[in-house]
Amino acid sequence: MSACPVAAEPAVCAPLPVLGRDVRVPLVTGGEVTYAALDYGASAPALQRVWDDVAAYAPYYGSVHRGAGYLSQLSTELFENSRADVAAFLGCREDDQVVFTRSTTDSLNLLATVLPPGTRVFVFETEHHAALLPWERRAGVEVTYLDAPRSPRQAVETLERALAGREPYGPALVCVTGASNVTGELWPVRELAAAAHAHGARIVVDAAQLAPHHPVDIAELDADWVAFSGHKLYAPFGAGVLAGRADWLRDAEPYLAGGGASRAVTRGPGGGVAVEWHDTAARHEAGSPNVIGAYAIASACKALTEADFGRLVERERQLVATLREGLARVPGVRVLSLFGEDAPRVGVLSFVVEGWNSSHFAAALSAEYGIGVRDGLFCAHPLVRTLLGGTPDEPGECGAPEAGQSLNAIRVSFGAGTPDEHVTRFVRAVGELVREGARWNYRTENGRCVPA
Amino acid sequence: MSACPVAAEPAVCAPLPVLGRDVRVPLVTGGEVTYAALDYGASAPALQRVWDDVAAYAPYYGSVHRGAGYLSQLSTELFENSRADVAAFLGCREDDQVVFTRSTTDSLNLLATVLPPGTRVFVFETEHHAALLPWERRAGVEVTYLDAPRSPRQAVETLERALAGREPYGPALVCVTGASNVTGELWPVRELAAAAHAHGARIVVDAAQLAPHHPVDIAELDADWVAFSGHKLYAPFGAGVLAGRADWLRDAEPYLAGGGASRAVTRGPGGGVAVEWHDTAARHEAGSPNVIGAYAIASACKALTEADFGRLVERERQLVATLREGLARVPGVRVLSLFGEDAPRVGVLSFVVEGWNSSHFAAALSAEYGIGVRDGLFCAHPLVRTLLGGTPDEPGECGAPEAGQSLNAIRVSFGAGTPDEHVTRFVRAVGELVREGARWNYRTENGRCVPA
Repeated sequence: MSACPVAAEPAVCAPLPVLGRDVRVPLVTGGEVTYAALDYGASAPALQRVWDDVAAYAPYYGSVHRGAGYLSQLSTELFENSRADVAAFLGCREDDQVVFTRSTTDSLNLLATVLPPGTRVFVFETEHHAALLPWERRAGVEVTYLDAPRSPRQAVETLERALAGREPYGPALVCVTGASNVTGELWPVRELAAAAHAHGARIVVDAAQLAPHHPVDIAELDADWVAFSGHKLYAPFGAGVLAGRADWLRDAEPYLAGGGASRAVTRGPGGGVAVEWHDTAARHEAGSPNVIGAYAIASACKALTEADFGRLVERERQLVATLREGLARVPGVRVLSLFGEDAPRVGVLSFVVEGWNSSHFAAALSAEYGIGVRDGLFCAHPLVRTLLGGTPDEPGECGAPEAGQSLNAIRVSFGAGTPDEHVTRFVRAVGELVREGARWNYRTENGRCVPA
Repeated sequence: MSACPVAAEPAVCAPLPVLGRDVRVPLVTGGEVTYAALDYGASAPALQRVWDDVAAYAPYYGSVHRGAGYLSQLSTELFENSRADVAAFLGCREDDQVVFTRSTTDSLNLLATVLPPGTRVFVFETEHHAALLPWERRAGVEVTYLDAPRSPRQAVETLERALAGREPYGPALVCVTGASNVTGELWPVRELAAAAHAHGARIVVDAAQLAPHHPVDIAELDADWVAFSGHKLYAPFGAGVLAGRADWLRDAEPYLAGGGASRAVTRGPGGGVAVEWHDTAARHEAGSPNVIGAYAIASACKALTEADFGRLVERERQLVATLREGLARVPGVRVLSLFGEDAPRVGVLSFVVEGWNSSHFAAALSAEYGIGVRDGLFCAHPLVRTLLGGTPDEPGECGAPEAGQSLNAIRVSFGAGTPDEHVTRFVRAVGELVREGARWNYRTENGRCVPA
């Protein structure tokens, strides 16, 4: 059951220290346990290293870019070094820009605003809403939604067909996830990038679920942009990243209007104002930058690299294997998958349990085992509905698990800070709940299940 | 010289503990001193209390809103309680919404996107770029820029005249600062709000420089919205606030498209997607919320309230008096002011020194006295140019202070964490520099002065 093979070097098996690793939570059935945070796909705990770096810097915090004081100069250097560290982590090309945003959602919304007029966007219906919805809001942009593919090969074929069918010439963008936030499955980014470029389109990779689990090399993938969030990359201080080609970013109106983005503002003779904008990353970073958020991301990038990211990937692969083998032994558990049971995936997996309301199941995992997972549609409604097979019956009440198939699913997700014990406890808990039922009563409150 | 009158209670005179209060910085002239952070107007240090609260919470950090685990529930409660705490701090009306943004700049850009079509916006040229520039970008919105008034009364009259001259009916918005980020002067918000409402317009207050220095009661001011930033309110964790009327926020398209803002997403029969958006504050908070940033702001709000904000205001008033009296004794120092020398102001003051390049002066304050101020145009170019009196000569080289009037100004700013000694050291340093000149040589690098 252990994810740590006997022959492996100990370092392979040790999770990276994260905040909250010793947090104890009460159980409805009495006593308390160490909290098992298995919702990394939503927000991961901060790496201890990230926290320590932020704590060491915090007394030196100062305004960046224009302050004349020692701490302002130090903070400016730290902020711009953070940008360089992120660029190195992502394998950015020399001309790429790294823009600090607030999150992946923000990064993709920013990219949507810089699309040249008339851009055609191609996006699979399987994307997270953050990657699915920003494009159509942009006037003059036409979006083609592609049906869910059932294999990586079919994904490439579907995209190629769609791109071949478009009006040639004119700007086009493909938006695709690196790893699904629902199934954890890896998408064939390199092949999709090649297909996009062969048809004169560009590609942005939603790496929110990929970057924390797997090295992302933008040049090697030949992606045009990559977006990710600090809070899923063990750096939950309100910052995210959009990195990639500078030209569209430079040619577009600034994302926000304000200081930092504006180089010069003058009153015009007609009474209005004239603005000259920066053409560096600052163009899209109006307002005081979130220095601590950016530095936290850079710290996480360095921590993952220095820990040997390859080892972390291997360790996570072993935990995923433990999870899959464990769930396969529990009758009635159906793991959601687009690309088939054996498709490679990061530490993100969703499932439903026959006869169980997913909210009820997730509530019991929390209340009776101290395990934090997520239930719902994971901000990817079309994908989850496709995976569940249309619209199932209304779910049963929380107190009546046998009353019907769930409308929702349960997601378990983990990463570099997850001890083996959390995964083994989870597998044991799923087995016990299915076999023996919940030991407590639950009731519905605001549409969700809570202990009665 | 002390800001602490003999008869005052000791508590009046004690600054609130902030991070970095013991940081020592080197001087070019040898040795080191405790850093005097006098650039609060750009970014204030974190209150120790805010840091302690964040540090205590960080191990319990979890995803908000949809996670089923204990830490997710705790984090959700903490996040929503933070919203309630901010609403209480601002004296929000029952129906007001508090939206967590990334900064004041972000808050005002958000408000610009929710303006009803055809809104006429009225804004003084004296505003920070974040309050000056977002409006005109919105299609169908017409902006009237108002000339700098020379008294609070003239501000009200100018606004009234402009509003009286507009086409009646149709939505209108006035945007005004609560306290200038350049002069620190208080604007007559209550009177401007009354004028706006008398003419059927709404008003948003840029409270970035007001909220850290003075209680802001949105209902009492009768303002429609208030915006401020955490990083100026002793909570530098990447979050800001827009609070006020819910209707325009509810009726508009979401600020960002993504998860959290979307209640339901379905594929339509024509191949597209249909979205049902939330109509709470979540509508404009797509993506995972910055829980730590929001909590930090709430912590700062509570800390200011519990410390007795009135006392902090009184203490700051005394420091401002010390500063003004000190600068008045230095020949060649010209304090920038719209409303006259004696106008009430918060702890923000800009000035120029006859014959000095402001960047040179600011560099010398840092390198020779360990004092961090800011030089430049403070992201309020039209205002500073008006205050400087048109376009002065090109500034002299850093090594030749006598070579001409500066194009820029120097800003000194402080707040609840500032010890008296920082202000007295600053006044002494200004006097010495003017009297004796800099003791070190400086050179120009990237358009700024640095020690040679």
